[in-house]
Amino acid sequence: MSAKHATTSTPILPTLTERWSPRAFDTDHALPENALLSAFEAARWSPSASNTQPWRFIVARRGSESFAKIEATLAGFNSQWAGAASALVVNLAVVENDNGEPQRWAEYDLGQAVAHLSVQAHSEGLYVHQMGGFDAAKISESFALSDKLRPVSVMTIGKLGLPEQLAEPLKEREIAPRSRMVVHDLIVVND
Amino acid sequence: MSAKHATTSTPILPTLTERWSPRAFDTDHALPENALLSAFEAARWSPSASNTQPWRFIVARRGSESFAKIEATLAGFNSQWAGAASALVVNLAVVENDNGEPQRWAEYDLGQAVAHLSVQAHSEGLYVHQMGGFDAAKISESFALSDKLRPVSVMTIGKLGLPEQLAEPLKEREIAPRSRMVVHDLIVVND
Repeated sequence: MSAKHATTSTPILPTLTERWSPRAFDTDHALPENALLSAFEAARWSPSASNTQPWRFIVARRGSESFAKIEATLAGFNSQWAGAASALVVNLAVVENDNGEPQRWAEYDLGQAVAHLSVQAHSEGLYVHQMGGFDAAKISESFALSDKLRPVSVMTIGKLGLPEQLAEPLKEREIAPRSRMVVHDLIVVND
Repeated sequence: MSAKHATTSTPILPTLTERWSPRAFDTDHALPENALLSAFEAARWSPSASNTQPWRFIVARRGSESFAKIEATLAGFNSQWAGAASALVVNLAVVENDNGEPQRWAEYDLGQAVAHLSVQAHSEGLYVHQMGGFDAAKISESFALSDKLRPVSVMTIGKLGLPEQLAEPLKEREIAPRSRMVVHDLIVVND
């Protein structure tokens, strides 16, 4: 079993056990268009408050102008490794509806859609790594986004590369076991 | 194929196609403890910003004191159907860390954890229905929650019941086909 597999007290779906967020991506890999489409189909069918579907995406394949624009907004370590991925995607929350009313669950629902997307992608042998470290204002400006669309995260999608591609300390993190709090500490009331 | 199955332009994981949010739950069903545990294991292993894991849960089985307290906070139609479920769970975002700093992606990451949980639950024959319509302040008060824990949604978990249990207009909604925007409208830039 890979050090990256989740350790659970009871079995869960293999896709959920095996999913993790790598930094080493295969620089020769191009995304099959069908795998990209099925990932967004998974996002599309996730649940949302009153079916508002408050998720939009900027999809940029490696080599495109948009990819370079997104890569230029990445902060710190992210700018060192994310460029190897087959695509960079900006995850946007629709924070206001067409009547100008705030959509309270836009970010929460966007998180769900990205989760469904990453589960689907993983089931097709692709890896997703989400990042919060990027300049959201610069994304909004570069892509002339409406104020209704809030960039919440950027993610890489691609095929797994080799830890050796990475410099330290990222190489060490790439092979370290994953860790989480114990499940009982997540449940504050159990009745 | 059920009217509730997602219609996709390319196949996706059956669990994602078949998952939906019912209102009719089996009032005789008690949750197997192992299924409940595996659902929370799935939540536990979902990704989060810098592995902050900003998700906590109030778990209340039908018949418990906590179940009644949560049910009393539900708004509108939710109060009519949710009591039939085997459990009510309050999904809490940890919006502040131990140093008093805000956790920017707490709600987004909570959404991901709940998504992983619902995918796992569905794979074990359970259904989840998330609700935004509840009194968050009343939840905080009833359970004496710290200000760091923000109630974002309440969900039912249980076994599917029959549409006939529901009064109109809920009965009609229970059998109506699910709908979503077309996938291409979700992608605002495709490069």
